[in-house]
Amino acid sequence: MSKNKYTIYGINNCVTFLSNKNDFILVKIFINQNSPAFKNDKINALLDNYNDKISYLDNQLFNKKFPFKHSQGIYLEFEGIIEKNIDELINDNKNSCFLIIDQVKDPQNLGQIIRTSECAGVDGIILPRHNSVHLTNVVLQVSQGAFIFANICIENNIVNTIKFLQSNGYWIVGIENSIESKKWYEMDYKGKIGIVVGSEGKGIRKLVKESCDFLATIPMNGKINSLNVTAAISAILFERNRQLLDK
Amino acid sequence: MSKNKYTIYGINNCVTFLSNKNDFILVKIFINQNSPAFKNDKINALLDNYNDKISYLDNQLFNKKFPFKHSQGIYLEFEGIIEKNIDELINDNKNSCFLIIDQVKDPQNLGQIIRTSECAGVDGIILPRHNSVHLTNVVLQVSQGAFIFANICIENNIVNTIKFLQSNGYWIVGIENSIESKKWYEMDYKGKIGIVVGSEGKGIRKLVKESCDFLATIPMNGKINSLNVTAAISAILFERNRQLLDK
Repeated sequence: MSKNKYTIYGINNCVTFLSNKNDFILVKIFINQNSPAFKNDKINALLDNYNDKISYLDNQLFNKKFPFKHSQGIYLEFEGIIEKNIDELINDNKNSCFLIIDQVKDPQNLGQIIRTSECAGVDGIILPRHNSVHLTNVVLQVSQGAFIFANICIENNIVNTIKFLQSNGYWIVGIENSIESKKWYEMDYKGKIGIVVGSEGKGIRKLVKESCDFLATIPMNGKINSLNVTAAISAILFERNRQLLDK
Repeated sequence: MSKNKYTIYGINNCVTFLSNKNDFILVKIFINQNSPAFKNDKINALLDNYNDKISYLDNQLFNKKFPFKHSQGIYLEFEGIIEKNIDELINDNKNSCFLIIDQVKDPQNLGQIIRTSECAGVDGIILPRHNSVHLTNVVLQVSQGAFIFANICIENNIVNTIKFLQSNGYWIVGIENSIESKKWYEMDYKGKIGIVVGSEGKGIRKLVKESCDFLATIPMNGKINSLNVTAAISAILFERNRQLLDK
């Protein structure tokens, strides 16, 4: 796991980061002197400890350096390790849940998945090292700060990771349209569980699918039959939350 | 309701359009001669009827004219009216459902909402004419062809639209975190129903909220507490589908 440099921007994103920066090292903050961020009380309170790291720029220079539509006048650079070690994340919580993302390619999708998963309260997100989008700045930006809490693991071999989870008492459910698939709400998501979703066009790879203990699918009611992977994950994770809450 | 010119690109998007173009008028198609689209059998079969509308361009010229990352070598212009009239959409289906989107600003979000809603089988989507993103090319592109089937209405006054739906036997549920809100799965979504969601940051406007018959909320289990509006809609619409399917 390597220490990397990342950047994020926008008031909400930066407030979440500055309030919860954990072991990340803040490298530099740039503020536009004619911007909402400059006058934002939350931002100013949080920046009190970082006076030596702030550069105040005028409107023209800021927008030239950081031409992002939604920057709101704040841009920050930090350094650290986002990736977590799965050994430290598996736990004995009765309803521990990991989301396994098999080869999603689009950084917008991965960012949204991280955000939704964090809101839904999963224990970790597992990505394959190869043929998957990684933790780019776009992914972090779209996650709206959720990357800080989301416990993201990057694994070389997803089949081995599934076996590792199974050997630790996790059941694995693949979300895939197949003859053997149950409807998504007929699946029991209580207990220690891993939920596997596949890439945007191709679904879960064959060997990964064969490693799953169960398969579940979300039948479509429309004509285009192409639910975005992030929408499918939201439907599944909140169905799990319903089952955990609804006694 | 005015006839407008729109553009979309990418193989899936264009295949969906060409297979289901309804009353839309195809104006022009541009194909990159060195691209996946040029060799795509589905595309070529669908283009048989439109020989007079196709321009084949070489790689350099196509990419200069259409610098879109995911064009896959196909770009199409069409003309028509996407907007529908709500009077023609309300119906006597036992489980008719409208989604009312109060002032969503982001075209990516609206495009995803249209896609998810079409997959989940809602009867129509209602947008306010003012302070909302409209049916831009980005919205259509992100919807992946769902705009053709999604029955989108644009209304001047959402409170009046809610009253109109109520007078036609629809119950209105606002998705909003409030003391009176039930948990999202405790709400009964069966029957004729309108589901109201608010804008990204601000939620549902006060007067719109006061017009709702019920309020429901999705409690968060994480630390960031900021579920994307598209993820919330997916959770709600598939909870509705669960209730309709699960007898």
